[in-house]
Amino acid sequence: MFSGAVIYDSPTAAIARKAGEPLVIEEIEVAPPKASEVLIKILCTSLCHSDVTFWKMAAGPLSFFPRIFGHEAAGVVESVGENVEEVKAGDLVLPIFQSNCGECRDCKSKKSNACSKFPVRFYGGMPIDGSSRFTDMNGQILHHFFSVSSFSEYTVVDMSHVVKISLEIPVDKACLLSCGVTTGVGAACKFAQVEEGSTVAILGLGAVGLAVAEGARICRASRIIGVDLNPEKFEIGKQFGITDFINPTTCGEKSISQVIEEMTDGGADYCFECIGLASLMADAFNSSRQGGKTVVLGVEMHGSPLSISPYEILRGRTITGCLFGGLKPKSDISSFAQMYLDHELNLNGFITHELNFKDINRAFDLLLQGKSLRCIIWMDNIENGK
Amino acid sequence: MFSGAVIYDSPTAAIARKAGEPLVIEEIEVAPPKASEVLIKILCTSLCHSDVTFWKMAAGPLSFFPRIFGHEAAGVVESVGENVEEVKAGDLVLPIFQSNCGECRDCKSKKSNACSKFPVRFYGGMPIDGSSRFTDMNGQILHHFFSVSSFSEYTVVDMSHVVKISLEIPVDKACLLSCGVTTGVGAACKFAQVEEGSTVAILGLGAVGLAVAEGARICRASRIIGVDLNPEKFEIGKQFGITDFINPTTCGEKSISQVIEEMTDGGADYCFECIGLASLMADAFNSSRQGGKTVVLGVEMHGSPLSISPYEILRGRTITGCLFGGLKPKSDISSFAQMYLDHELNLNGFITHELNFKDINRAFDLLLQGKSLRCIIWMDNIENGK
Repeated sequence: MFSGAVIYDSPTAAIARKAGEPLVIEEIEVAPPKASEVLIKILCTSLCHSDVTFWKMAAGPLSFFPRIFGHEAAGVVESVGENVEEVKAGDLVLPIFQSNCGECRDCKSKKSNACSKFPVRFYGGMPIDGSSRFTDMNGQILHHFFSVSSFSEYTVVDMSHVVKISLEIPVDKACLLSCGVTTGVGAACKFAQVEEGSTVAILGLGAVGLAVAEGARICRASRIIGVDLNPEKFEIGKQFGITDFINPTTCGEKSISQVIEEMTDGGADYCFECIGLASLMADAFNSSRQGGKTVVLGVEMHGSPLSISPYEILRGRTITGCLFGGLKPKSDISSFAQMYLDHELNLNGFITHELNFKDINRAFDLLLQGKSLRCIIWMDNIENGK
Repeated sequence: MFSGAVIYDSPTAAIARKAGEPLVIEEIEVAPPKASEVLIKILCTSLCHSDVTFWKMAAGPLSFFPRIFGHEAAGVVESVGENVEEVKAGDLVLPIFQSNCGECRDCKSKKSNACSKFPVRFYGGMPIDGSSRFTDMNGQILHHFFSVSSFSEYTVVDMSHVVKISLEIPVDKACLLSCGVTTGVGAACKFAQVEEGSTVAILGLGAVGLAVAEGARICRASRIIGVDLNPEKFEIGKQFGITDFINPTTCGEKSISQVIEEMTDGGADYCFECIGLASLMADAFNSSRQGGKTVVLGVEMHGSPLSISPYEILRGRTITGCLFGGLKPKSDISSFAQMYLDHELNLNGFITHELNFKDINRAFDLLLQGKSLRCIIWMDNIENGK
């Protein structure tokens, strides 16, 4: 039901006032949702590398400050704007950076999950009009992030970015399904469609890379090779199905692709790049077998081109990529939630830390130090904050 | 049945003695087929751009002279070596540059048509041992080409490169199925799996590009955009389903991809590169829609890398490629022959010229001048040579 009245007083948000500086928790004002928008009370959120990438960005056309970051979260619908019938107050929802309007050519197509009504938004406003729903107590506009901005007790999200989810799933596990874990598992299980018995190489073992491993494990890949500079990732990766580990610094004169080619007798059937480096995307491609497929998941932020050999393409190799694991949020997330409830999908292993919202900057420290996979940040205080 | 006896006296072949110089028809000696090899009496052959590319190659590791070119042909089995049971004397066969041993990991896989027992052979000898079965009358070794060497009245081909074909199909039409036409039609119909109603852009309208159009037409693509520097290709292309034509020299300041993006409201669903230029492969990729697929068919011979934007890959675009249209010769060619017999596949339109073997150099002239698609070269004299 539409509610124009503001029923929440001075919620707090963690504001990034300057690039790379600690967030500041302040009271803010949140405007009511406009037509097709939803006001969400965030229950918990978590920190993803993309938040950190944009938080560090001091200049350039994608740098907006002050800003409210955060795009991995679970929350409850507080109120809805006009024309919203899909959810109502009290529903458990995930705000998702990837739009899914359901009506555009791409949403109706099986080939693409890139909604063409609202392309992924790197700018600082709402999808519908580019304006902000946030102001600080001095009346200064606070920019949105990825159409979500979950580092706030309340946020406003366009309905095309909101997915209703079953109340059966614990909210912290639901939170993980709103970005990184779903991206990796979806890329392996649905986008690449890894088959039983196939070989998989994963370059970069952050949460997305480990989620690819988890997806490949679910698809019964026979061998899952993880590549990372941090040797501790091998132990962590074993619970997600990693069977072999390569540390590029200990390969001597051999390239990553040479090592993988030798290990797999010609290259892996599926290779995933999960960092966002053009050179590593080429390594992934060169590590794939003829007839094999390379999937790019990392977002390259340096403007570097990907350079590959046309002759190797002619050998039947494919390179492709996607955001959000190639999934359509509204139709695909629920199946992953069900897989968790059926004990098929390991979500618990991704939660390495939990914190209270007031300690959100510690989540940045943990991620920057490579100590956390996902740190759940609870908006209401918890006693067992780790 | 194995026949060690040489039952053919001094057949002739068109020998390329030096790069770029006219072929010379001379008597040669053809050794009997070894185990797993087949002696084929060529009935007709045709000239493909790959012959010309290697014929021009004066130096480098892939330059071999004197050499017998030709890899698109139809013939009759004259005799077989030991262990050959798949064909017998009198069978109509196509020699194919792409091996299909049927037993290797790739031949058994649905993902690849690149036989790993005998990778495509750019060198000058037979697959099994690298040696030649041809000598001239002075005893000088003549190099093979692409494991076929069909510019000869008799040639020896490894059984993994031989496909038996129904006697129902006229030999000149069968000849076309042994390389270029099958490559294009196969790439559209089987490798890319173009769907009804989709948009297709084809960069380069030689025989392969026009065969892609023919395949897209068969798959009921709604729009087939041809791109070529030669405006005459539009009229020729219409019979193969080309609906729109772009001449890059008349696009003004717009790039090919900008023009295609505007024509198709965001890019074509399928793009095919049929020339072999890395820059054109990038144009093709950039002409594809998000969620779209680019297929590289042209062989890049300059060593240039393909450079594309990682961000555009993340929008769900795919680039892939294949030789021989991604087809497995032994299992896939017969279906195209049947499509011709059922009047579904237009092969006649590709035959623009016919010549006697003694006039083979004219076929080179016609192709180099852009006047021919396929010129059928008959080994026995014809009266109606055009």
